[in-house]
Amino acid sequence: MVPSSLTVIGLGAIGGSLAWQSLLAGVARVVGYSPRPAEGIQALKAGAITELGETAIRAARGSDLVVLAVPPRATLDLLGGMSSALEPGALLTDVCSVKEPVIRQAVLSGAGDRFAGSHPLAGTHGTGFPSASPDRLRGCVVYVCATGTPGGHRAASMIAGFWERVVEAAPVLIEAGAHDRQLAWTSHLPQAVASALAKVLADQGLGGVSFGTGARDTMRLAASDPDMWADILLLNREPITQALEHTRETLGALQHLLSNGDRAGLVSYLELARSFRRGIER
Amino acid sequence: MVPSSLTVIGLGAIGGSLAWQSLLAGVARVVGYSPRPAEGIQALKAGAITELGETAIRAARGSDLVVLAVPPRATLDLLGGMSSALEPGALLTDVCSVKEPVIRQAVLSGAGDRFAGSHPLAGTHGTGFPSASPDRLRGCVVYVCATGTPGGHRAASMIAGFWERVVEAAPVLIEAGAHDRQLAWTSHLPQAVASALAKVLADQGLGGVSFGTGARDTMRLAASDPDMWADILLLNREPITQALEHTRETLGALQHLLSNGDRAGLVSYLELARSFRRGIER
Repeated sequence: MVPSSLTVIGLGAIGGSLAWQSLLAGVARVVGYSPRPAEGIQALKAGAITELGETAIRAARGSDLVVLAVPPRATLDLLGGMSSALEPGALLTDVCSVKEPVIRQAVLSGAGDRFAGSHPLAGTHGTGFPSASPDRLRGCVVYVCATGTPGGHRAASMIAGFWERVVEAAPVLIEAGAHDRQLAWTSHLPQAVASALAKVLADQGLGGVSFGTGARDTMRLAASDPDMWADILLLNREPITQALEHTRETLGALQHLLSNGDRAGLVSYLELARSFRRGIER
Repeated sequence: MVPSSLTVIGLGAIGGSLAWQSLLAGVARVVGYSPRPAEGIQALKAGAITELGETAIRAARGSDLVVLAVPPRATLDLLGGMSSALEPGALLTDVCSVKEPVIRQAVLSGAGDRFAGSHPLAGTHGTGFPSASPDRLRGCVVYVCATGTPGGHRAASMIAGFWERVVEAAPVLIEAGAHDRQLAWTSHLPQAVASALAKVLADQGLGGVSFGTGARDTMRLAASDPDMWADILLLNREPITQALEHTRETLGALQHLLSNGDRAGLVSYLELARSFRRGIER
């Protein structure tokens, strides 16, 4: 779908970028709303939206598509109200990193046929509108999850079309549970590991010494929003716990190779890791 | 010191950059040698060296300063021969990430008064001369470790002067043991964690799915040279083992908060990590 009027709730790195790019792509009316008034004004001044809503509910009026671009807990809180505020025929989506609980809530709110969950792989440790840019989302993979209700697949396919045609992203349809299990390993685990590493170094009192770019890159995600990530971790608790357990075992295996002085074992461990990392280069 | 003739053994990311920048900074004669002939020719063609030595020993002839820019094991292997090949009054240094074993070997080779260990924090996961650039080392912190022999401090101070005046880097004098213990946490641990994370995902067979930039950055170091890193890990085994143990415990603490559903605890864990990460931004 190509909406003639789009509403974006939340104007941070993802919402701000989405509104901005949609406007540049020709969507005539882009209404923004942010719970942080200053962010709304920044977006308006930057030309990322055409108007600013007074409340989330009012911002949805007259739009063909409403995107909730707020953290998971706020998304869950907003879903009920937004579902009933939608114009007839309008669709609703979100951008959270966890999809099963969001879809469950959308169905409970009676929006099953008008909702699909979205997750653009375009996150950043930066927060707020200053981290938005009109091309942040272009070309990124966007997972789209249908609700499973009778009309859910039509909604998912129209929302996937929006990501493809307006945002120029690469939508991939995936079942919500499969999404959450996969992302536990590919996104939530790297976040947890980066934070744990920074926590280790903080506990050692190493804030004042020099770090190379490698160490800084490894911990870049640790600068992400703690509130948002506490919710993501809790909402996807089981697969993340499993991923953390495997990671502890794999670190233990490295310790074991090291204490045995097993050079060949170390090289093959590191080779396997290198080959994997090279394989996921863009 | 500002050498009028410099020899660099190893023309990869660090050695190639060091030779190149020294030449551009006005060192009249920069002799390079690489155990990989193609690398030597690349460096010569790029104008990073003025001449190519036939062997490491011959390359050292006529130079005031010889820099061993090869991996740790090759450095240990070369130290004896290079020590006896030095011109009278010439100095010798290396660029390894582990300093105690190198310094021990330098002293054993009789070069205690003419050697200091160097470690520029300018590593990259890239290898070979294609990863060299004339400004890779400019502005970086370079740890310089004296041997502890009577003339060792004079050598360390002259070598620190070379890094400062020729390379425009920021030398920091530090005791070798303290260096190795610190780097176990600030550099070797991030490398081990990045590799372990990539190993976990490889073991899960996740090579074919999409990753965001955050996950890719967290694992960037996993693409580093396995042979070099196996040696670094083994040469600094004890403090790294301790750092790995703390990391496993800290991941365990995260698992514990998660399984208890302790949101406040998770937020404060992630806040601590964020605050640390923000504090080490350049």
